[in-house]
Amino acid sequence: MSETSDTLQGNSPAPHPVDPAKYPVLSRVSRPADIRRMDLDELEALCADIRRFLIAEVSVNPGHFASSMGAVELTVALHYVFDTPDDRIVWDVGHQAYGHKLITGRAPLFHSNRKLGGLSGFPNPAESPYDTFTAGHASNSVSAALGMATAARIKGESDCPHPRNVVAVIGDASIGGGLAFEGLNNAANSAANLLIILNDNDMSIDPNVGSLNSYLAGLNTSKSYNALRYNIYRGLHRMHLINEHNRGRILRFNNSLKSLLSKEQNIFEGLDIRYFGPFDGHDLRRIIRVLTDIRDMRGPRILHLRTVKGRGYLPAEKDPASWHAPGLFDPTTGIRSTGGSAPKWQDIFGQTLVDLARADSRVTAITAAMLSGTSVSMMAREFPDRTFDVGISEGHAVTFAGGLAKEGLRPFVAIYSSFLQRAYDHIIHDVAIQGLPVTFCIDRAGLVGEDGVTHHGVYDIAYLRNIPGMTVAAPRDASTLRRLMAAALLPERKGPMAIRYPRGAAPSDTEPSATNGQPIAIGRGEKLRHGSDVTLLSIGPIASEAARAIADAEVQGISTAHYDMIFAAPLDQEILHEIGRAGRPVITVEDGARAGGFGSAVIEWLADHGYLLPVTRIGIPDRFIPHGTVAELRHLAGMDAGAITEAIVAAAHSTR
Amino acid sequence: MSETSDTLQGNSPAPHPVDPAKYPVLSRVSRPADIRRMDLDELEALCADIRRFLIAEVSVNPGHFASSMGAVELTVALHYVFDTPDDRIVWDVGHQAYGHKLITGRAPLFHSNRKLGGLSGFPNPAESPYDTFTAGHASNSVSAALGMATAARIKGESDCPHPRNVVAVIGDASIGGGLAFEGLNNAANSAANLLIILNDNDMSIDPNVGSLNSYLAGLNTSKSYNALRYNIYRGLHRMHLINEHNRGRILRFNNSLKSLLSKEQNIFEGLDIRYFGPFDGHDLRRIIRVLTDIRDMRGPRILHLRTVKGRGYLPAEKDPASWHAPGLFDPTTGIRSTGGSAPKWQDIFGQTLVDLARADSRVTAITAAMLSGTSVSMMAREFPDRTFDVGISEGHAVTFAGGLAKEGLRPFVAIYSSFLQRAYDHIIHDVAIQGLPVTFCIDRAGLVGEDGVTHHGVYDIAYLRNIPGMTVAAPRDASTLRRLMAAALLPERKGPMAIRYPRGAAPSDTEPSATNGQPIAIGRGEKLRHGSDVTLLSIGPIASEAARAIADAEVQGISTAHYDMIFAAPLDQEILHEIGRAGRPVITVEDGARAGGFGSAVIEWLADHGYLLPVTRIGIPDRFIPHGTVAELRHLAGMDAGAITEAIVAAAHSTR
Repeated sequence: MSETSDTLQGNSPAPHPVDPAKYPVLSRVSRPADIRRMDLDELEALCADIRRFLIAEVSVNPGHFASSMGAVELTVALHYVFDTPDDRIVWDVGHQAYGHKLITGRAPLFHSNRKLGGLSGFPNPAESPYDTFTAGHASNSVSAALGMATAARIKGESDCPHPRNVVAVIGDASIGGGLAFEGLNNAANSAANLLIILNDNDMSIDPNVGSLNSYLAGLNTSKSYNALRYNIYRGLHRMHLINEHNRGRILRFNNSLKSLLSKEQNIFEGLDIRYFGPFDGHDLRRIIRVLTDIRDMRGPRILHLRTVKGRGYLPAEKDPASWHAPGLFDPTTGIRSTGGSAPKWQDIFGQTLVDLARADSRVTAITAAMLSGTSVSMMAREFPDRTFDVGISEGHAVTFAGGLAKEGLRPFVAIYSSFLQRAYDHIIHDVAIQGLPVTFCIDRAGLVGEDGVTHHGVYDIAYLRNIPGMTVAAPRDASTLRRLMAAALLPERKGPMAIRYPRGAAPSDTEPSATNGQPIAIGRGEKLRHGSDVTLLSIGPIASEAARAIADAEVQGISTAHYDMIFAAPLDQEILHEIGRAGRPVITVEDGARAGGFGSAVIEWLADHGYLLPVTRIGIPDRFIPHGTVAELRHLAGMDAGAITEAIVAAAHSTR
Repeated sequence: MSETSDTLQGNSPAPHPVDPAKYPVLSRVSRPADIRRMDLDELEALCADIRRFLIAEVSVNPGHFASSMGAVELTVALHYVFDTPDDRIVWDVGHQAYGHKLITGRAPLFHSNRKLGGLSGFPNPAESPYDTFTAGHASNSVSAALGMATAARIKGESDCPHPRNVVAVIGDASIGGGLAFEGLNNAANSAANLLIILNDNDMSIDPNVGSLNSYLAGLNTSKSYNALRYNIYRGLHRMHLINEHNRGRILRFNNSLKSLLSKEQNIFEGLDIRYFGPFDGHDLRRIIRVLTDIRDMRGPRILHLRTVKGRGYLPAEKDPASWHAPGLFDPTTGIRSTGGSAPKWQDIFGQTLVDLARADSRVTAITAAMLSGTSVSMMAREFPDRTFDVGISEGHAVTFAGGLAKEGLRPFVAIYSSFLQRAYDHIIHDVAIQGLPVTFCIDRAGLVGEDGVTHHGVYDIAYLRNIPGMTVAAPRDASTLRRLMAAALLPERKGPMAIRYPRGAAPSDTEPSATNGQPIAIGRGEKLRHGSDVTLLSIGPIASEAARAIADAEVQGISTAHYDMIFAAPLDQEILHEIGRAGRPVITVEDGARAGGFGSAVIEWLADHGYLLPVTRIGIPDRFIPHGTVAELRHLAGMDAGAITEAIVAAAHSTR
């Protein structure tokens, strides 16, 4: 484990040179400067190479696909027109940035995409100077780019002969997030040299929602007007008639023109950001020309490009949602490998939600642009009027749920753990202070694997258990998840409740039919196994890792009692008194941050109640965790069965 | 301490009947139904009564003033036109809701405003059925009201003979927050019966920023057009020509009308929310008529009122920022009592920031509509180009700071502790993962006193110390704050740093000139006092409370060693090894949540290093804390000197 960085690291992969026979143009690109010497025909050939390369690579090494396919021309045009890395490109989310990785020297490493020690699936400043800012959580690009552009101004870099350009590339789903609006609202007010490119494919992971989105679709209809306006701009610019001095006048001229020619409301110009578009984002020659024209303008401006998600691969163009991250597929036929048959956690949740909603009309569901990822889609199909996909708006999702709950409904809010961080204040202020019965179903909790550092859901226990009145639970198997969700609706239960579960397949369970789906008792854990040397307390499905470790330790003659606590708050006091009195060394195991997490809650309780026991806490150490398989990452983080066995053995020996 | 509620409570105050001689109309109002029987002349007299009552009461019992003065007519009109509490009014922030409290039966209790056990200074559902949702943090009203209106629709309440109306009242500063935008974006898409009232006084606590704000100001210029349009609407409505069926057609008609008559872009109608206004928010008869007209329309609509903050009290109208929360004042002369002469924490911060900025051109400052409250105003005066007030946009503030830091600047982000909860993900994703040197100067940390439950800044240590690479510190006095801020700029320091300090006056310090302003060593605490029976570790200015307790315990023959740890992360390992080896019982003291906080970090460390010591953690218990003086609340929470003394005595006796 590296002590020199806050991020744990794996080993670096060996490069695979790009085959010049297959990819004649891409193989000649080791950095963006190489493409700036190409002519437009070569650039178009490069786009074709990139698409074929992406199809070949992502079909055998799964990752995000359709977004990058739709951004190929944009990517090539940006690196052609702008002087990267001196000019800064900030990719929002980064699902679309594979092409950017390929032409910034990382094609030979692309076979390692999303693998431990390999390339990150998202732009990552630790990986390349061309990746200017962390990406993964939506809507941050405008604010980050505005910061960079402002820094250039403060440092005087924007006044040099080659002033620094900063470009934010944001999708039509991300721009609906509150953070993006805050960024736009502040960018407009600023003299910073910022170009915002709206990559509008009318599609987030799931079909887009929100009024802004319908609005963007409508802008398409004013093409002739915008083309006219752009041509006027271009003419004035070529004649060197546009400068900082007369910018305001020309803007006003344009707005008058607009009011004469268009019935459209333009939100961006309402916010005083110069707007260009919409243009066809796959017309490479056109967008190179437009970018060249607007590159040296000053102040905030927005370029609206219409693109097709999955462009250039017909199966993906037809069904872009499924091809967002398609898994393995046959490049020729477009047939995707079906995953394993084990039910996923998200589907157990989705089906249980539907079952509860059938029996209780107060049950409502909310998600934030994670309709299929959380399986809230199952509820949406049967109860569309009681299901709300609010788009990329985690904060609104939670406050809106607070409003529903205040009026007597029982909302279930399904959001990935790391994205729920966006709604921390909303959970406290708009739900918990009023003690409202909102249930947070937190998917992708714990280590998520290949999506890596921005997506691991490891802080949730720590940031939720300190909120007064918040119940925090994690099921170890499917039936416990069902029983927890049922318990959320108990009339005697008050206040909010959080249920966290990971990505992927849920362990099979053998629940007796008598308790199947019956509400579990809040704050009660379960004793899974007797033992006499060491006590192990786990929470969540990492119980199975702990069980393997206990079996291994037993081979070494160590007898370990195992409790699944199920709840991090409130803790099961009976169990804790029992283990406190037993006096054996304690090991806590969780798939979450050690600092402030479940194990921390256990030692707080033991200290409060005067039990002096040695406690070893196993969980995510105080480092950021990279991408890799969950098994690799658990090993790296010191929380796999081997590490747990070592802890059991050490604890047992410490008392002998 | 109540065990039945998540909120601690004080005793209820005795009512003071409203004097009919002084307030002839207000004294007749015990609930809103009373005003619905009044004629318009009486209602105007009621408005005058409310203003005189507010001036008389707030001058002797300080609170928020200018906002409520500006909302008197709006408040009376709302309760006159709408059938509260069956119809729901959601106040955003709630600074403007004193008038609402007066006419909903709380005038006789208003003398207890912001006092322990008395009325809350903000709308509070625990206090009255007329207070429909928690208020205090800006921009939540649209989302909460949309949730309520949607619940009414789901429950069929909106289809009754008297369908339920839900009204959100939001200021022009709050509507620029990302959460409000997310709410608007979703409201527009919805069939929910929601009226949004934009109470536009062109003024948040500090003068407003952001492009949306200039935009709103501009809307005023299109008065004639909007009046025409409203009159057309009104005519159609009176003739019963507007219904759900033809709403869309009439909207389109209006938009066409608009495109003919107006050069304005209307953002709200761009989002497909029906817009009415702007109207004079002090013309009671007019707004009653408008509200009556638009009350029974369906779907989302926005009413834009222009109001004057401080209206009806000339000193406040002239200087509304100073009169936002003026403290004690002479109602006749308008002369405000000056506060104590002791320097405030925020001013120590502000002056130090200016000092650092003079010496280091990388120093920049960001706040989010807390320019005067954080004293970033001091920096703004001397370095306006390096100071950024981004408006109510905590998330943007942090991500923007990340962008600045990525380009080599050293931003200081000054935000109140409870508001920084809005930016939790941004701290992790946009700053910490990249290890960027952003310094968070967290004002209003710990118990804030009279502002109460929504404003206590008690979770920050818990939610920050679990972020890898985050330094978390709290100074006990002014000189330590200065030295911590200097340390933030050390070249060897990497990653983000948080420095938390409370509201109010900073303890005087007697720092030797040799170390004055010199950077403090990161992760090093200080031994303040030797002792042989008990070890006490404190963090932050609650050190003085601990010192009093130690002196009291000494009278009882108990000798206590006292360390100021200064840092919650990283902890001072030398000190901890020292106290671990000493083996004496340990008491930790902090002005923050016990769950996951500083004391929790200490016991985690002790457990990790195998020290088995009894530890008593003193801090905020697992309850929400109401309003009152800080001294009262510390007593209520069991963390004043008396409680600490008891803990010291108990700890000492446990080992004897």
